[in-house]
Amino acid sequence: MGKLERMDSARPWEKRENTVAGNGLMDRRALLRGAVLSAGIAAAGAGIAQADESIGANAPEWMKTPGRSFSGYGTPSHWQEKVQRIFTIAPGRAGTGTSRTPLQLLEGTITPSGLHYERHHNGVPDIDPAEHELFIHGMVRRPLAFSLDALMRYPMETQIRFIECSGNSAIFNQPQPQQATAGDLNGLLSCSEWTGVRLATLLAEAGVTQEAKWVIAEGADAAAMSRSIPLEKCLDDAMVALYQNGEAIRPEQGYPMRLLLPGFEGNMNVKWLRRLNVTDAPVDARDETSHYTELMPGGKARQFMFPQGAKSAIIKPSFGMTMKGPGPYEISGLAWSGAGRISKVEVSADGGQTWALAPLSEPVLSKAVTRFRLPWHWDGRPCMLMSRATDEAGGTQPTRASWIAQYAPGQIYHFNGIQIWSIEGDGTVKNVYV
Amino acid sequence: MGKLERMDSARPWEKRENTVAGNGLMDRRALLRGAVLSAGIAAAGAGIAQADESIGANAPEWMKTPGRSFSGYGTPSHWQEKVQRIFTIAPGRAGTGTSRTPLQLLEGTITPSGLHYERHHNGVPDIDPAEHELFIHGMVRRPLAFSLDALMRYPMETQIRFIECSGNSAIFNQPQPQQATAGDLNGLLSCSEWTGVRLATLLAEAGVTQEAKWVIAEGADAAAMSRSIPLEKCLDDAMVALYQNGEAIRPEQGYPMRLLLPGFEGNMNVKWLRRLNVTDAPVDARDETSHYTELMPGGKARQFMFPQGAKSAIIKPSFGMTMKGPGPYEISGLAWSGAGRISKVEVSADGGQTWALAPLSEPVLSKAVTRFRLPWHWDGRPCMLMSRATDEAGGTQPTRASWIAQYAPGQIYHFNGIQIWSIEGDGTVKNVYV
Repeated sequence: MGKLERMDSARPWEKRENTVAGNGLMDRRALLRGAVLSAGIAAAGAGIAQADESIGANAPEWMKTPGRSFSGYGTPSHWQEKVQRIFTIAPGRAGTGTSRTPLQLLEGTITPSGLHYERHHNGVPDIDPAEHELFIHGMVRRPLAFSLDALMRYPMETQIRFIECSGNSAIFNQPQPQQATAGDLNGLLSCSEWTGVRLATLLAEAGVTQEAKWVIAEGADAAAMSRSIPLEKCLDDAMVALYQNGEAIRPEQGYPMRLLLPGFEGNMNVKWLRRLNVTDAPVDARDETSHYTELMPGGKARQFMFPQGAKSAIIKPSFGMTMKGPGPYEISGLAWSGAGRISKVEVSADGGQTWALAPLSEPVLSKAVTRFRLPWHWDGRPCMLMSRATDEAGGTQPTRASWIAQYAPGQIYHFNGIQIWSIEGDGTVKNVYV
Repeated sequence: MGKLERMDSARPWEKRENTVAGNGLMDRRALLRGAVLSAGIAAAGAGIAQADESIGANAPEWMKTPGRSFSGYGTPSHWQEKVQRIFTIAPGRAGTGTSRTPLQLLEGTITPSGLHYERHHNGVPDIDPAEHELFIHGMVRRPLAFSLDALMRYPMETQIRFIECSGNSAIFNQPQPQQATAGDLNGLLSCSEWTGVRLATLLAEAGVTQEAKWVIAEGADAAAMSRSIPLEKCLDDAMVALYQNGEAIRPEQGYPMRLLLPGFEGNMNVKWLRRLNVTDAPVDARDETSHYTELMPGGKARQFMFPQGAKSAIIKPSFGMTMKGPGPYEISGLAWSGAGRISKVEVSADGGQTWALAPLSEPVLSKAVTRFRLPWHWDGRPCMLMSRATDEAGGTQPTRASWIAQYAPGQIYHFNGIQIWSIEGDGTVKNVYV
């Protein structure tokens, strides 16, 4: 029965776990052991009274005056104003570039809509929803124009799915490891609950003809961003998304509607969706020739590699965080795959010599971000942390070296190699290659 | 091969379904039938060319000039500015009352954090996270004070869970049915992805003694909102939540931390959590005696009825929407239970004579909101729509009359009766009792 003890970040929690792999990786299931009942210790006593008194005597200022009133649409606390997307904008072109989700400041799996990554080719259009139409035309029985009201009347479905730019993590292609946050490195990745109309339902209304093999999707932005999409995908799990995380889709994600192609590279999930032209061949749109192809060693550019590979990244700890001395920590991170569910994530704290299976946060959903977590006892010595995701289709992360070996120099798309954080003796965290 | 046809909300989608219950309820599985291949019709022809031309000639204004640039933290489209919480504030007390989630304007299952319902007893405190401490004291071996930084270092977990005020839907206790939106009627209900530290982990650190049976939770607001919670719940699925939908919890939901007691009435999920006082008895706090009890016919007030019952509400259609003439529609709504997963939702379009099982959107999660959807062919005649949820523990919704019969007049908490929308011949939707 003690005096009040103050816990801070330098004060580790009690270690109650068994080791599951080298260098201190622990068993999460044991964490709650000993939760209750320190066998028969009487509660009353001077220690408790003392603790209670010190709490009562120190009511903070904000308990002494009424707080603020209600709000129509809430915003984050002003104490969180540094939690922002990270920009990279093309010189002189304010609407061309990317902004990244600050993964290192977030938790769980859903990305707040205000922090969903952006990739725009000519800015965010301000579309009047009453004027917007979605056209389905080309190789169809009935060319159709849908108003937003018409789409709202169709049966809908809801899917929690990630979207990842195929240029995400391209920075790992650089010869020297860049010291940057998890968001800088991997933040062209976000995950939302999307609701809308299954594209197959709309194509059924239009009646696709037998020659049809591709659908050309075009956005209503000033770049008329276009991509060729296999008809097979459009008839599978594709959706015309109208809602994001419960409310109307945000302007940066395509208001009033976007194409959602679960698991396919972000660029194909055309925002501000205006046209679906059903054809028998792809169109070699600007963004499927000048960008978003893979440069191969033979000098050819490989096209139409659509699904994002199995991938993971440790977010906690990561660059910018500092370890507070030896003791227990949680390792956590994100895993995702365009091929389906994540089947396992392995974590190593000894540079890949031994690996532990990291428990996955339920629900583990297909083509959604999955959070993994593993308790770890850091002994204070330098070491290397790595994670390796495997999906239900058997896809797994290659090493960075073997990923690079597949391509010609300068190929930047679809990086899904294993990433390594080095924990230094002083507690800092560095991005390293082996 | 036709000319371009314009679809609007008065233009129903093609009916491709079989009936599954009376008065036009249809089979959702059949919806995609006939999606492709209108058998061998050639695509080329004057109709298509004409359609393509009209689309190209009508590029909207926003495709002709570059759109706006990137933003650090995004907000909804200005076209959505009417999507706001609905206030009810006590006269002269700006910080006491409720604001409701506008369910009728939302979709899916996640509530956008900016629209999560509010219930405050003395306003929203502005808490400096660096100054805030969480105390665990009373019948414990080690009285502890946790800084936010200390909590951030503990192993975390993520749960998608609803929170519902136990006063939600009290309006159905009034003798006459009130004509109000689904949000007005049922909007003290929201669902978020919560991430934080399992309370059992923290109680294990403190070491609860053997006499302990209750935990008194207190908020750091100017009402020092307090509730008594059975220790058993605190050691089960309770969480000290630090993140909501991926980012730091919002001020209105308890920044920097709140208690999450999945399935228990909203008021117990104490916001701005400051103290957990472990005791052997409840304390009869103001908000568990003056409010949040059930008035029974014998004149007694029943206390400590914590879990929210199985419940559902049809959101589409609902009051304020108007049917656009006979034809196909989607019926959709929300179902939830404090006892666990929703096992089924039945829908009737003939005032309860016949019922169809409504498909549930995956994933169906314990103590989370579940979306149900069912296609429906309205014949244009007056009728009554009802939904009835059942949970995995066997709990189901009573009729309104049998719910009321359990209690003394004026009992307003825990209403979970079946609700009825009347579709009038002119397409308007009314709240009715039978």
